[in-house]
Amino acid sequence: MQDWLIYLSGEIHTDWRERIMDGAKEAGLPVRFAAPVTDHPASDDCGVVTLGEEEKPFWKDHKGAQVNAIRTRTLIEKSDIVVVRFGDKYKQWNAAFDAGYAAALGKPLIINHAPDLTHPLKEVDGAALAVAETPEQVVEVLRYVTTGVLKR
Amino acid sequence: MQDWLIYLSGEIHTDWRERIMDGAKEAGLPVRFAAPVTDHPASDDCGVVTLGEEEKPFWKDHKGAQVNAIRTRTLIEKSDIVVVRFGDKYKQWNAAFDAGYAAALGKPLIINHAPDLTHPLKEVDGAALAVAETPEQVVEVLRYVTTGVLKR
Amino acid sequence: MQDWLIYLSGEIHTDWRERIMDGAKEAGLPVRFAAPVTDHPASDDCGVVTLGEEEKPFWKDHKGAQVNAIRTRTLIEKSDIVVVRFGDKYKQWNAAFDAGYAAALGKPLIINHAPDLTHPLKEVDGAALAVAETPEQVVEVLRYVTTGVLKR
Amino acid sequence: MQDWLIYLSGEIHTDWRERIMDGAKEAGLPVRFAAPVTDHPASDDCGVVTLGEEEKPFWKDHKGAQVNAIRTRTLIEKSDIVVVRFGDKYKQWNAAFDAGYAAALGKPLIINHAPDLTHPLKEVDGAALAVAETPEQVVEVLRYVTTGVLKR
Amino acid sequence: MQDWLIYLSGEIHTDWRERIMDGAKEAGLPVRFAAPVTDHPASDDCGVVTLGEEEKPFWKDHKGAQVNAIRTRTLIEKSDIVVVRFGDKYKQWNAAFDAGYAAALGKPLIINHAPDLTHPLKEVDGAALAVAETPEQVVEVLRYVTTGVLKR
Amino acid sequence: MQDWLIYLSGEIHTDWRERIMDGAKEAGLPVRFAAPVTDHPASDDCGVVTLGEEEKPFWKDHKGAQVNAIRTRTLIEKSDIVVVRFGDKYKQWNAAFDAGYAAALGKPLIINHAPDLTHPLKEVDGAALAVAETPEQVVEVLRYVTTGVLKR
Amino acid sequence: MQDWLIYLSGEIHTDWRERIMDGAKEAGLPVRFAAPVTDHPASDDCGVVTLGEEEKPFWKDHKGAQVNAIRTRTLIEKSDIVVVRFGDKYKQWNAAFDAGYAAALGKPLIINHAPDLTHPLKEVDGAALAVAETPEQVVEVLRYVTTGVLKR
Amino acid sequence: MQDWLIYLSGEIHTDWRERIMDGAKEAGLPVRFAAPVTDHPASDDCGVVTLGEEEKPFWKDHKGAQVNAIRTRTLIEKSDIVVVRFGDKYKQWNAAFDAGYAAALGKPLIINHAPDLTHPLKEVDGAALAVAETPEQVVEVLRYVTTGVLKR
Repeated sequence: MQDWLIYLSGEIHTDWRERIMDGAKEAGLPVRFAAPVTDHPASDDCGVVTLGEEEKPFWKDHKGAQVNAIRTRTLIEKSDIVVVRFGDKYKQWNAAFDAGYAAALGKPLIINHAPDLTHPLKEVDGAALAVAETPEQVVEVLRYVTTGVLKR
Repeated sequence: MQDWLIYLSGEIHTDWRERIMDGAKEAGLPVRFAAPVTDHPASDDCGVVTLGEEEKPFWKDHKGAQVNAIRTRTLIEKSDIVVVRFGDKYKQWNAAFDAGYAAALGKPLIINHAPDLTHPLKEVDGAALAVAETPEQVVEVLRYVTTGVLKR
Repeated sequence: MQDWLIYLSGEIHTDWRERIMDGAKEAGLPVRFAAPVTDHPASDDCGVVTLGEEEKPFWKDHKGAQVNAIRTRTLIEKSDIVVVRFGDKYKQWNAAFDAGYAAALGKPLIINHAPDLTHPLKEVDGAALAVAETPEQVVEVLRYVTTGVLKR
Repeated sequence: MQDWLIYLSGEIHTDWRERIMDGAKEAGLPVRFAAPVTDHPASDDCGVVTLGEEEKPFWKDHKGAQVNAIRTRTLIEKSDIVVVRFGDKYKQWNAAFDAGYAAALGKPLIINHAPDLTHPLKEVDGAALAVAETPEQVVEVLRYVTTGVLKR
Repeated sequence: MQDWLIYLSGEIHTDWRERIMDGAKEAGLPVRFAAPVTDHPASDDCGVVTLGEEEKPFWKDHKGAQVNAIRTRTLIEKSDIVVVRFGDKYKQWNAAFDAGYAAALGKPLIINHAPDLTHPLKEVDGAALAVAETPEQVVEVLRYVTTGVLKR
Repeated sequence: MQDWLIYLSGEIHTDWRERIMDGAKEAGLPVRFAAPVTDHPASDDCGVVTLGEEEKPFWKDHKGAQVNAIRTRTLIEKSDIVVVRFGDKYKQWNAAFDAGYAAALGKPLIINHAPDLTHPLKEVDGAALAVAETPEQVVEVLRYVTTGVLKR
Repeated sequence: MQDWLIYLSGEIHTDWRERIMDGAKEAGLPVRFAAPVTDHPASDDCGVVTLGEEEKPFWKDHKGAQVNAIRTRTLIEKSDIVVVRFGDKYKQWNAAFDAGYAAALGKPLIINHAPDLTHPLKEVDGAALAVAETPEQVVEVLRYVTTGVLKR
Repeated sequence: MQDWLIYLSGEIHTDWRERIMDGAKEAGLPVRFAAPVTDHPASDDCGVVTLGEEEKPFWKDHKGAQVNAIRTRTLIEKSDIVVVRFGDKYKQWNAAFDAGYAAALGKPLIINHAPDLTHPLKEVDGAALAVAETPEQVVEVLRYVTTGVLKR
């Protein structure tokens, strides 16, 4: 099989993606990664910058969200595994939306969040095949799943 | 065509479902409604009450979330239209999860929320065919969609 | 089998739907019919009337088109046969869009148009299982398909 | 991920495809392009030239349309993004058909047309994730979607 | 569960359908039956009678085959079980086509033919869940499958 | 929504199906039940009795298994929820096969077995949305899922 | 796009496959070809040679047909275009089965046969996007479809 | 076509996978192989080692089974052929689950087991396209299917 394609959805204000990607690289895993655009201002403005300004914030957001969706839905559909990370800030409804989207497509889901978010995330966790507390745990799951090696 | 089946996902602490169902009844719309279990304690406890106690909160939540998923995923898949309501309290990640799940299944989505939630909900709204500010607007969309009558 | 559900897409300014429905009724065919909203002003205004005004015509049209899509896509997906009629006025891109949508879903397509439209409609006709010149021919196809009776 | 495959459907009498392909090349985007046969006489005659003459124009068109469909449906199904361009001439029902076909397959749609076509194209635009007025805007959307770079 | 819908494809010159339908009725089985149009001249002429004459036999056949396909594909897709009968006359390629069509849709297939056709039908039989030599055997399979009663 | 269709797969030598059906009836649940043929000799002999004797046990089993599959696969595909029960006797590979089949179709799975089977059933349980130790627990899950009532 | 994969089903006693493959090679088309095993004795015996002898011809055929199906169904599903050739000998029900199988999967079908088979093949032809009388015509269709060049 | 991907599910305590892989290598077959993690202790412990300890054996097993499922379901879905081997020890419900899972996805199934398991495996065998008694027979089936060469 070719490399596994891992989609990293969710939180964009911490270094969790780098920790997973660095860990996977260090371990030499047969994986490639995909992600939404994580440049927050670009992600917010992409609709109006590419397709023209809007006066109403609703339509600015709408255009941006749909342009982003061209990227995110395509990459989620191509991915082998979808990892969704929830942090302690912001609403993060797009992360939960991605989790639901991936679940309905039958993609294996790995959810990553701190233990204090367990109760509000219970439906999301309930659709996952792995719930990790740290990015390092995600790396270990990926190591085992893609190489069969269990690092004890 | 038989009655349209409308699934009402999201917020469980206000009367928005009743407002939609009453409005639809008053208008004589050819619709039936489905919803998750909206009795909050029952929804939280259903896993351990039906299948046995758990000591760790994570597994109590997990069992409950999965039992609820038997109901919610089945009903979403059977529905013709999925309405998701976001309120001003709680994390509501399950609502966003449902929206993503329904979107991936190709279900027409109607999202209902107050205008101040526009920015954090932009990805969810971007996947919808209608974004309503009030339950009454949802009723008017349902009236038009199911009967062709536009009440001006 | 239950009655066949026939979706009648396209032209809204002539009486072709009535001619098909009356013909089917007179013939006692086991069919029911569905259609988009054919009240032109309602169809144009449904977005802003139900969900709030827009200043820019683009967004007024967008809201209306998406509200109409809740109805049309749902009914096309439920239909057994999709009939699309092209007349001699207007752009009728929505009719061609519906034909493409139905074709990709694998729905049997019957296209109805006058012979002078053959060349520009060749791709649409090429995806159809029947190309009729008149609504009365559509009725005869429906009679044969649903009852097995061929009226010579 | 490999290069994105972008299908360019619609108008064949202007240089819009070249403008998009040149722009993408200049920007070094990870994309490849596919398109219908844009040699108009070849596209019209392909059925009878390859499979034998027809006396009736209807069957000449039919054979040609179906041979073209072997190419277009296959390429649309393989594409990651479908761009459909509408110009100011001809009926262009095949373009709208392609848009409907792609929409039903769940392909991300980018529609490109001048503003004066907004009203008759509202249903097509309503199914799109981006509506661009110029080919250059399409390039900018592709740049952002495939590389994450937003050129302000 | 509602009645099972059984599609009876294939040979139209013997009384095998009646033998199955009579046997099922006598046994009181919870089944309904569907079939192609078995009036041979009607089946041959339906295209040109409903949609207009053709000079070339190829197009007469083509129009007829496609009008018949509206009926047959729809009914096969709705059926729970597809029975295909091969006799000793004619090419019967449409019967084999139906078997392949049903197999690709995942429909349970029952093939009915005399033992001397075993070798040329081996690929068709290989896709079936039951191969019967007589219509009466088909009735017994339907009895067992739909009621659980095995008549020894 | 209509009644939920519950498929009861697995063990055929104890009264677990009756306990679930009686419990559901007593509780007045909006459910109907389906099951494989549970008459063991009939299930073993159905192939050769309906379609003709076989000398080799392999082909006798093969014919029987495939005739049974006409029933079981059809009913599993129509079901809303699939319950699979494992007992303490026999290999029960058909029960595990049904669980895998239902899982791949995305059917909500409820697995029922005594605690001592937990380890060998871990992959099957891992695909389930509920793991019950007794038929009575299954009834309580069905009560909650189909009516929203949690009996404490 | 990568090379197109063309599946060549049907007649195994003439050189039509070579004529198509040679023609495509000479034309430098971006295509690869796949086919069933065309060594007739091997195709007949493959089941019993690989998996053990059978006394009854029915089971010998059955084993062989199913082993062949591992190859043919997989290759048809991977193909971009399916060509089915009918000759003037034998029953050729497997060719018609393949055509039906490919049609239900939505594969573009090219049917190749002499004109005297038009009537018995009308249902098969009716599901095709091209009906060719000679292998050379198939090459010309492939040339046009895969390169856009129409050789007049 | 690229190499065929063969998934080898089932028994992990004998050398059957090596016998198939060595045989395929020696024969120079165009195949690659995939398999679950066959290190039994790693497979049992992977959940708790990667994601944290559990006190209750049920949850330890559950976490492990779901982490393994990320690998196994992904690989089964990517495979062209699924081989499932049953031995004479252990419950092997996961092997039967995989067979059911693969069957519902429409994957060609080859089942491998000794003749004395025929009766309890009849439903699993009934869903297969080949039933082999030895790994060497599986190699011969793969040789024929992937190269067309029948070694007599």
